[in-house]
Amino acid sequence: MQVRIGDLAALLGGELLGDAEHAVSRIGPLDGAAPDTISFLSNPRYQAQLAASRAGCVIVAPAMREAAAARGAAIVCADPYLAFARLTQWWAAQRRGIVPGGVHASAVVEPGAVVHASAVIGAFAYVGSGARVGAGVVLGTHVHVGEGATVGEHTVLKARAVLSEGCRIGARGIVHSGAVIGADGFGFAPSAGRWEKIEQLGAVAIGDDVEIGANTCIDRGALDDTVIEDGVKLDNLVQIGHNVRVGAHSAFAGCVGVAGSAKIGRHCTAGGGAIILGHLELVDHVHITAATVITRSIHKPGQYSGLFPFDDNAAWEKNAATLRQLHTLRERLRALEKKP
Amino acid sequence: MQVRIGDLAALLGGELLGDAEHAVSRIGPLDGAAPDTISFLSNPRYQAQLAASRAGCVIVAPAMREAAAARGAAIVCADPYLAFARLTQWWAAQRRGIVPGGVHASAVVEPGAVVHASAVIGAFAYVGSGARVGAGVVLGTHVHVGEGATVGEHTVLKARAVLSEGCRIGARGIVHSGAVIGADGFGFAPSAGRWEKIEQLGAVAIGDDVEIGANTCIDRGALDDTVIEDGVKLDNLVQIGHNVRVGAHSAFAGCVGVAGSAKIGRHCTAGGGAIILGHLELVDHVHITAATVITRSIHKPGQYSGLFPFDDNAAWEKNAATLRQLHTLRERLRALEKKP
Amino acid sequence: MQVRIGDLAALLGGELLGDAEHAVSRIGPLDGAAPDTISFLSNPRYQAQLAASRAGCVIVAPAMREAAAARGAAIVCADPYLAFARLTQWWAAQRRGIVPGGVHASAVVEPGAVVHASAVIGAFAYVGSGARVGAGVVLGTHVHVGEGATVGEHTVLKARAVLSEGCRIGARGIVHSGAVIGADGFGFAPSAGRWEKIEQLGAVAIGDDVEIGANTCIDRGALDDTVIEDGVKLDNLVQIGHNVRVGAHSAFAGCVGVAGSAKIGRHCTAGGGAIILGHLELVDHVHITAATVITRSIHKPGQYSGLFPFDDNAAWEKNAATLRQLHTLRERLRALEKKP
Repeated sequence: MQVRIGDLAALLGGELLGDAEHAVSRIGPLDGAAPDTISFLSNPRYQAQLAASRAGCVIVAPAMREAAAARGAAIVCADPYLAFARLTQWWAAQRRGIVPGGVHASAVVEPGAVVHASAVIGAFAYVGSGARVGAGVVLGTHVHVGEGATVGEHTVLKARAVLSEGCRIGARGIVHSGAVIGADGFGFAPSAGRWEKIEQLGAVAIGDDVEIGANTCIDRGALDDTVIEDGVKLDNLVQIGHNVRVGAHSAFAGCVGVAGSAKIGRHCTAGGGAIILGHLELVDHVHITAATVITRSIHKPGQYSGLFPFDDNAAWEKNAATLRQLHTLRERLRALEKKP
Repeated sequence: MQVRIGDLAALLGGELLGDAEHAVSRIGPLDGAAPDTISFLSNPRYQAQLAASRAGCVIVAPAMREAAAARGAAIVCADPYLAFARLTQWWAAQRRGIVPGGVHASAVVEPGAVVHASAVIGAFAYVGSGARVGAGVVLGTHVHVGEGATVGEHTVLKARAVLSEGCRIGARGIVHSGAVIGADGFGFAPSAGRWEKIEQLGAVAIGDDVEIGANTCIDRGALDDTVIEDGVKLDNLVQIGHNVRVGAHSAFAGCVGVAGSAKIGRHCTAGGGAIILGHLELVDHVHITAATVITRSIHKPGQYSGLFPFDDNAAWEKNAATLRQLHTLRERLRALEKKP
Repeated sequence: MQVRIGDLAALLGGELLGDAEHAVSRIGPLDGAAPDTISFLSNPRYQAQLAASRAGCVIVAPAMREAAAARGAAIVCADPYLAFARLTQWWAAQRRGIVPGGVHASAVVEPGAVVHASAVIGAFAYVGSGARVGAGVVLGTHVHVGEGATVGEHTVLKARAVLSEGCRIGARGIVHSGAVIGADGFGFAPSAGRWEKIEQLGAVAIGDDVEIGANTCIDRGALDDTVIEDGVKLDNLVQIGHNVRVGAHSAFAGCVGVAGSAKIGRHCTAGGGAIILGHLELVDHVHITAATVITRSIHKPGQYSGLFPFDDNAAWEKNAATLRQLHTLRERLRALEKKP
């Protein structure tokens, strides 16, 4: 693929510095870029890389206009990182081309399912009875859309994603391979040393513009639905328990776990491996550091952390051993303070 | 679905207070319930919700008899939470209806597999040679039952569950979507800077009444089998290493990891994200707090914890920095104590 | 299967002590072994088990020659654990037998895919257009090999593994069930409170002799590829973010998470549940303890740890509460030290 940078400037709504006819054929980082590469500079900290880069064109912020012009071709955009994101989207769409709608000969669409004519249904995909698959939807190979489930317009379920019976996802979503939406929540009543199953009668309701990572699980609700609001982004191997509500535009990195009935606000984030316990509430704009365990509600926006700092093993062992006597140390300190 | 509360009282073996003819059409929490809702009160703490609830009927304990009667219709049961669990089971069974046995036209059942006539085999399901599928079993779409594997009576493998070759699951089990039973354990012999594979020659043996969550993995044993005893409940994204034994009626929440050859007692529990290292032993009735790492055997029943308390980021940073000098602090304290 | 121990000694290149005609029919641990069992002793600590074992033959190191001879038959090998690994490989190959190449009638191989005649393609497997599947490759049931993906010679993809479009794996690899190679990396540009998707234009490049656990995820790169070098071993439920590089012969246990753009050296290891943050670098021969969170680069080989020691719940509560005042304790200690 060869693209004129003049066309890219027009696409991104930016100001072109340099020769509009110059063509690029890949997007790449500043470092290691060649004349066939379009790159971007979003963080002024990397300005030194700009001067040194051999990139054929660089997307920069207005503040970098002079520095970029001194180097070579550039596209000046208000938000270069956002422009870069939009460029990747356009690039991927060119690569993908037009995918004709249609149902693969090997797919099974049960009677009573409603599949829009423009939807693509991949090999070995399964669409249960009563399910609704909207316009422009793409179901990959081995996808399972359960009885009565709903897939909104232009949503893509990649190979082997599962949307269980009665669950709903809105428009323009992406569900990656292996994700399981709508397995049973983990609910049991103890009974004489055994666990009696509480059937999970709710479903999962997912808004528009939601992305769900590979092998991520979102459980169906016990009585009411588990809810993922618009614009939420979940990375891979995330676990969302039953009756959780994740507020709009929140984003969780890989391996995050959220226990049942937690209510997460809007515009929250959680770093990789964070755990949020159940039956608690986070207000909007709460940011959880990676590997932190949230054990109670948070009523104030901000960054919250709780991870054990790593050290070389010998130092850690000494400190960890002392940690187990920390309460005693405090008592001893108190005793010393009371000494006349 | 409209159900007379008199019929529900009979089903649950409870005493009905109020009009047996009143009909309900959903199960729901006290809070937000309407006259068409049957609800329950298991924790006396929520008694205030009882008085305020508009539920058409409430399942309560004998101690709540008066309070419930003052409000409206109720079913009095010795254990309301257990009664609620049983009610969900009955409700789900009504919804599900009778599923006729049979093998979907697209499924592959290899010669030499024995499938009971009452079993249901879903679209694109695969049953390997020599496998045995019992009465009333339901295999969902894309399920893989390997060569020589065994599925006990009335066990359900949901869409895309994998039971690998030679592995066995007992009766009345549920395996959720994406679970992988019987992948190779993680075993290698170091050899001149490389890893030489130790083939995993054991299998996985799972008892009766076991539930296994979505995308959970249980590895096959190296020489002997990995064993999951009766009544165990594993949530989603749990990892069980090779040659682990999980004792009967133990339950692990989401994202728990158990390393190879750990022996877990009966009636143990582990909260979400807990890690149990390998080659150790937990006696019966050990309860592990969420996100706790168990690094040695536990010989005494009880609750065990070890998680870093979270804080706002600034407070955490100060404390974490000091933690790395904790051993030194102890030395300094000791020096002070020795001062005359 | 009955095997003469003389044949096994020849196979392993070891010295036989005892009757070459004695036959064994299983491999098992010393403890509980019977005369039909071949066992091994790799750790001198377990020498007491050797004397007591009823095993028909034991693989031992030269240092154990006398002790083993005093007990019964033995095979003396320089590295008994490695010999044991090789024995399991031979054993598994015997069990497996010769698998004839061929494409299952239900599989879909798209036009333009190149599948070697000796490859085995399982039921419901899918091979996309332009994909290349090498000699001796085995694709299990429900495997997805995307458009333009490459599978090297003698690599095995177990039931339901996904190798997405354009991704490559080398020779002699094993990918366990449910693993997802090549889902989109987690990349978004913030834009007025929403997340704008950065399309992930790179792929995943995996070397030779790599093993990837069940339900493990390796994301495709944003611009360049995510790289897994030769001989790497990843356990189950591991998450590898976009543009990570894992150096040759490194091994990660279950539930490990590595965030985007981390560069891991060669011969590194990480215990279960460890988290490695993004945009950092570990040199060769770094070993991370289970459940440790690596928050910055490590420039020196060695063992690194950072996990909260567990305790009974009451003791933990006291220490954790004090931990939240640790900085204050240090201040108080300093004040005391300054007292004349």
